[in-house]
Amino acid sequence: MAYFDAASAAPLHPVAQQALQASLSEGWADPARLYKEGRRARLLLDAAREAAAEAVGCRPDELSFTSSGTRAVHTGIAGALAGRRRAGRHLIVSAVEHSSVLHSAEAHEAEGGTVTQVPVDRAGRVAAASFGQALRPDTALACLQSANHEVGTEQPVAEVAEVCRAAGVPLLVDAAQSLGWGPVDGDWSLLAASAHKWGGPSGAGLLVVRKGVRFAVRGPVDERESGRAAGFENIPAIVAAAASLRAVRAEAAAEAVRLRELTERIRARVPRLVPDVEVVGDPVHRLPGIVTFSCLYVDGETLLHELDREGFSVSSGSSCTSSTLTPSHVLKAMGVLSEGNVRVSLPPGTAEEDVERFLAVLPGAVAGVREKLGAPAPRTAARTEELLLDALGKRCPIPVIELAKVIGDVPVGGTVRVLSDDEAARLDIPAWCAMREQEYVGEEPAETGTAYVVRRIS
Amino acid sequence: MAYFDAASAAPLHPVAQQALQASLSEGWADPARLYKEGRRARLLLDAAREAAAEAVGCRPDELSFTSSGTRAVHTGIAGALAGRRRAGRHLIVSAVEHSSVLHSAEAHEAEGGTVTQVPVDRAGRVAAASFGQALRPDTALACLQSANHEVGTEQPVAEVAEVCRAAGVPLLVDAAQSLGWGPVDGDWSLLAASAHKWGGPSGAGLLVVRKGVRFAVRGPVDERESGRAAGFENIPAIVAAAASLRAVRAEAAAEAVRLRELTERIRARVPRLVPDVEVVGDPVHRLPGIVTFSCLYVDGETLLHELDREGFSVSSGSSCTSSTLTPSHVLKAMGVLSEGNVRVSLPPGTAEEDVERFLAVLPGAVAGVREKLGAPAPRTAARTEELLLDALGKRCPIPVIELAKVIGDVPVGGTVRVLSDDEAARLDIPAWCAMREQEYVGEEPAETGTAYVVRRIS
Repeated sequence: MAYFDAASAAPLHPVAQQALQASLSEGWADPARLYKEGRRARLLLDAAREAAAEAVGCRPDELSFTSSGTRAVHTGIAGALAGRRRAGRHLIVSAVEHSSVLHSAEAHEAEGGTVTQVPVDRAGRVAAASFGQALRPDTALACLQSANHEVGTEQPVAEVAEVCRAAGVPLLVDAAQSLGWGPVDGDWSLLAASAHKWGGPSGAGLLVVRKGVRFAVRGPVDERESGRAAGFENIPAIVAAAASLRAVRAEAAAEAVRLRELTERIRARVPRLVPDVEVVGDPVHRLPGIVTFSCLYVDGETLLHELDREGFSVSSGSSCTSSTLTPSHVLKAMGVLSEGNVRVSLPPGTAEEDVERFLAVLPGAVAGVREKLGAPAPRTAARTEELLLDALGKRCPIPVIELAKVIGDVPVGGTVRVLSDDEAARLDIPAWCAMREQEYVGEEPAETGTAYVVRRIS
Repeated sequence: MAYFDAASAAPLHPVAQQALQASLSEGWADPARLYKEGRRARLLLDAAREAAAEAVGCRPDELSFTSSGTRAVHTGIAGALAGRRRAGRHLIVSAVEHSSVLHSAEAHEAEGGTVTQVPVDRAGRVAAASFGQALRPDTALACLQSANHEVGTEQPVAEVAEVCRAAGVPLLVDAAQSLGWGPVDGDWSLLAASAHKWGGPSGAGLLVVRKGVRFAVRGPVDERESGRAAGFENIPAIVAAAASLRAVRAEAAAEAVRLRELTERIRARVPRLVPDVEVVGDPVHRLPGIVTFSCLYVDGETLLHELDREGFSVSSGSSCTSSTLTPSHVLKAMGVLSEGNVRVSLPPGTAEEDVERFLAVLPGAVAGVREKLGAPAPRTAARTEELLLDALGKRCPIPVIELAKVIGDVPVGGTVRVLSDDEAARLDIPAWCAMREQEYVGEEPAETGTAYVVRRIS
């Protein structure tokens, strides 16, 4: 068995396990109390705060422990927006932020605020200049992740922070994916992170608000954690979170080199082993452990099941995956193929042989799914100049598979009109054209669904 | 050492410790994922939900796990108010609710809502009729604790639920103090509780919203826990919470009898062992493990330190305790003495000899504090008809101590005017009069502070 979904949650680091164990018997009491058990709990909490602040690179009194990374993001964004209410109600986020940031932005819009999404390039990276262009006199806050959770692309946080700082706008950094690897560079104002991404336990996140940043807590008052995290402190989880952050940091430099080599191997070899694959995400500015690729003519959920059966736990941003029918907003914003998407995120300590076994198993798994779905056979002779492909009611990846089957039926220069009511087609048909070197002419509204027009040029 | 502050946090139950341990290695993955580790986490989460729902007496799909009891209360009140927005914006709470409820009420008022506080009797108990009187056509929600956290008084939840139900108003019950002892009776609509009060771990609470209750989640959308608890589920804590709830329930009937006998012993003997003590809270409708009393002429914080030195961890609702300078709102609402307040809350398993040792140590501890503070010596002959006592700048319990010292200096029928700027005096001087059988004439604004007028009648 190999667990390759560290970007979602990492197994508990041995140090976290020990720390949790030890503090369960020492840290259960109320740290606000004056008696022995309370004082002991307070000491543990204070020590954890010191350790976490050192790892983040902030003052201990700037750091609050929250019950999760999501909660840290929600509280951080709401508090910074409320604190800067006088400046205005404009919020800037990148288009590839974590859902906790985008959902906060939606909530802000629902309350009458305005939001600008900064686009990313095909590698999933924002440009600092785009953030600069999005800034307005009424901008209250800007948000940027340190690195993307689906494709591993690192963002130019320090540059963006500088642009924001020059405009007097605070920058909130969602550092969930990167904090285990090192502190976030640059002059950011707020930072959120989640312990279970670095091998800490569930139930602990952190929110840093730099001194001098205007911040107004929303909702009911609570005196704990500077009023920024309501409810009884989960001290055992906090202690374990801080201990494991120190532990993974101590191993980070060496482990980053090792994992980067392993993901580089996947990046290089998957396109050679599997036909019709696109590796996505920035090849240079990227996290050590994440590699993401999309396979044409493949249903992500079926592929995940195949890989699970072979003993590999991976994740997918495909539209066909799990509870959701819309493709990952990240892949969409990047304009890359979303079908048959696989994210491999290696936890520290991943064995080389597991990666090799994954590379050995993947081609067969993809081929099996393609066969089941009836992926395109060799082309037949062309006949008509324009062909209408009715893919209404068919879900990703069927429309693209059918397009691939019939494109050979029109002569070079001829067109195929794909009728589809699947939202994923809007993304996947242009992406297929780019990969297959066919021309994507554009979309037109149809009586039912949308017509996507493709011209055969090869 | 004896820990007598279970109402604040209980030490981890051995079953919780085992469950936590076991689920740390099984329940760390994302339960929304399709692979093996995710499915395993999902199974643990589902089983915990079933077990907790059975203990509460609700359907599993009515129960969400939150990160704390405070969070459950905040989310429950905000969601119920938002869901009933069309009915109106009036909220009813009892005057002795937990701060999480009262802070939610303040936040609601700050947003333009209205709040009615239902008073309690001297035992800290509401009358169902008072709730009935508070109901208005625009009442959106009513909140009542199942039992009070400071004095242990049980509330008539079933009766109040019936009154609310008849008016079509949902009742939210804060069951934090009682859920370990048994399910909450009556036809309530929402319920909140906290695992670390029943020997579960920190980091887990629960919110129940009955089917058919209008509920609108506020803040950013999050798909986990029916949208009612944002952030990655803390499955090990949830599993441990459910397991320990079952475990304490299995022991509850026998342990309730045993603890009730021990607290009854304290209730009966403290007034005999220590002069000038008032035992507060309902003598009949009360939780098994909580007993609270207040000691005249005693500073709560100093007494807590004395008891801590003797090896007893207890809590205090006195104005002189810890970070806060205002006396407990609970004692204030009850109209009882707040100075020298001590709450003893016994965790299940408390040894009889620890209680006996507490009763042996208490009289000396109280006497020691009184001596340090210079509590009243025998009375001297009366001289003037009216005496002015300047206690400005002096903090609880000094004003009352000085009052007690000089009351004998005026003849029967004469008055003492106590000048004080200490907020606690407003509560403690009338309470002292009631205990000492002197007449409390009333208060008058003074140039600085307030003049409290007391007539000597004995």
